[in-house]
Amino acid sequence: MAEKTLEDLFHDTLRDIYYAEKKILRGLTKMAKAAQLPELKQAFEKHYDETEGQVERLEQVFEMIGKRARGKTCPAIDGILEEGDEIAGEYKGTAALDAGLVSAAQAVEHYEIARYGTLKRWAEMLGRKDAAKLLDATLKEESKTDETLTKLADQMANDKALQPAG
Amino acid sequence: MAEKTLEDLFHDTLRDIYYAEKKILRGLTKMAKAAQLPELKQAFEKHYDETEGQVERLEQVFEMIGKRARGKTCPAIDGILEEGDEIAGEYKGTAALDAGLVSAAQAVEHYEIARYGTLKRWAEMLGRKDAAKLLDATLKEESKTDETLTKLADQMANDKALQPAG
Repeated sequence: MAEKTLEDLFHDTLRDIYYAEKKILRGLTKMAKAAQLPELKQAFEKHYDETEGQVERLEQVFEMIGKRARGKTCPAIDGILEEGDEIAGEYKGTAALDAGLVSAAQAVEHYEIARYGTLKRWAEMLGRKDAAKLLDATLKEESKTDETLTKLADQMANDKALQPAG
Repeated sequence: MAEKTLEDLFHDTLRDIYYAEKKILRGLTKMAKAAQLPELKQAFEKHYDETEGQVERLEQVFEMIGKRARGKTCPAIDGILEEGDEIAGEYKGTAALDAGLVSAAQAVEHYEIARYGTLKRWAEMLGRKDAAKLLDATLKEESKTDETLTKLADQMANDKALQPAG
């Protein structure tokens, strides 16, 4: 068996995030349903649509490297989403729920920021400018979503969470 | 039973990251051992020392809110570290190992950045400036570690990973 290379690492990580994005789609559906603030619900719905586009970009990258688009179980995203589910369950019906959902969603975004940052760098190192460009487009969307969530948290979710239970 | 509040969410998340930091200490020990590049090994060792300080800060925050320092299983960090172990195992002895270790460590850093960002915000909302200050100090260290890893990855690990297997 040939020694594993950076190309293998790139492919493995691509499969990891492909699995993760599909799980995130399900997670976003749940979070949008659970969110109380209309602006937060809307942010999750918007990011759901973006995520569908990100899945398509990943499929294009798989094609660029001549591989079949196929996920690989990613225990990291499974754990991150599991924590989100816990919060959604434990804080259901409370004023702190939205703050918890934002926190869960930001953990997801940061996982993606880490992975896409890595994948973009590796694509560049491997001379795959076309793939790097697609990965960078997604990286920018994830960073923007994280910023939107921070703003929402600062402006609304936390204020609401501080109000006495209605 | 009283309705759960933002204070509970703060406490729950504090327990989550307390558990995570302790697991990260073990992870950093393994990563430092596995790293091939001396600069990367050194970066992991330095961050190990920082992480010990971060654990102490968390213990101070627990004290500030009048709670016993106690972790709570965090499936997210368990999953993230599990992926790091997989890479360390699968790429052991290859030129791509260090690139993989950096990638795994950056996933850890981003999880922490998300959690400390959230905790700092909530501490401020709850009027706990003392806690917010400690959490912010850790947040800055995590962001700096992430930057250091990016630089290392750009400068060395990826170049090395591209070299044919020796």
